[in-house]
Amino acid sequence: MNDPAVPEAGTADDQFLPLRVWLALFSSVKQIESVVRTNLRESFGSTLPRFDLLSQLYRSPGGLTMGEISARLMVTNGNVTGLIGRLVDEGLVDRLQDEDDRRIQWVRLTPKGNKVFSSMAPANQSWVTEAMADLTEAELRQLQALLGKLKSSVAKVQKRPRGDEDASAE
Amino acid sequence: MNDPAVPEAGTADDQFLPLRVWLALFSSVKQIESVVRTNLRESFGSTLPRFDLLSQLYRSPGGLTMGEISARLMVTNGNVTGLIGRLVDEGLVDRLQDEDDRRIQWVRLTPKGNKVFSSMAPANQSWVTEAMADLTEAELRQLQALLGKLKSSVAKVQKRPRGDEDASAE
Repeated sequence: MNDPAVPEAGTADDQFLPLRVWLALFSSVKQIESVVRTNLRESFGSTLPRFDLLSQLYRSPGGLTMGEISARLMVTNGNVTGLIGRLVDEGLVDRLQDEDDRRIQWVRLTPKGNKVFSSMAPANQSWVTEAMADLTEAELRQLQALLGKLKSSVAKVQKRPRGDEDASAE
Repeated sequence: MNDPAVPEAGTADDQFLPLRVWLALFSSVKQIESVVRTNLRESFGSTLPRFDLLSQLYRSPGGLTMGEISARLMVTNGNVTGLIGRLVDEGLVDRLQDEDDRRIQWVRLTPKGNKVFSSMAPANQSWVTEAMADLTEAELRQLQALLGKLKSSVAKVQKRPRGDEDASAE
């Protein structure tokens, strides 16, 4: 998972340092994701895309359109429609047609969905907290600050995001 | 993408600090991935799963089995077979049946595939380097050290990885 085409560690490091940091970032995210995935399955019989979707809806009490959901999902752009269908069947979300534009569908958390997510969120927080337990608060803040700096650095080279299909602007 | 169910920043931070760090990690990886994705498409008409696969094969001159490839791919566990089929059609990889066990297929980079990947790897390195340009070398090393510490912290709570299907041990 974390051994792409980078020369062995121990060679003169400087040139490859950003690439190594990138791979370390990537593999730490995969590693934490796998912890969360395992715990979601074992504690709630749930999955990361499902948790992610409930989380997005929880944050948007007014609901989200299908397009907004696809754009926001952290984990997958995969079968959002299928996932929502299953959550509807389980009574966790409902779908409403937009009153003005019938092509638009809104998706909302039901009270049951709200309750289910409310029980998962603190568990997720505790898994992540436990996973980071070896880092002191000062280290976590340092990491947070470095990631903040990284974010604005990357933003400078980031072109306007666009859908893979509708390559509107360049 | 980066606004799950975490209270607004500015509330007493301590309790949510690990979760905030996790979300910052996650969003920085998504952000860098999007830069690499865009550049791969614009410079090479290529994709991240394809680059990732070529990269894995480049590191394994003896080839990889299909199972090894699925386990190692950083980006997707999606349609590996389809991806490999297209790379075979383009002459970038070839498939060989194992001499002892005909159920096992080996996948190898062809000389052409090797050449193609060799032209992409330095470009990828330069994109990542450019994306991180605002961080000093000291900051990059600090980030690397913190991620190293994070890795061993997460490893302590990580259960043995297993396939989603064959839940062998528990």
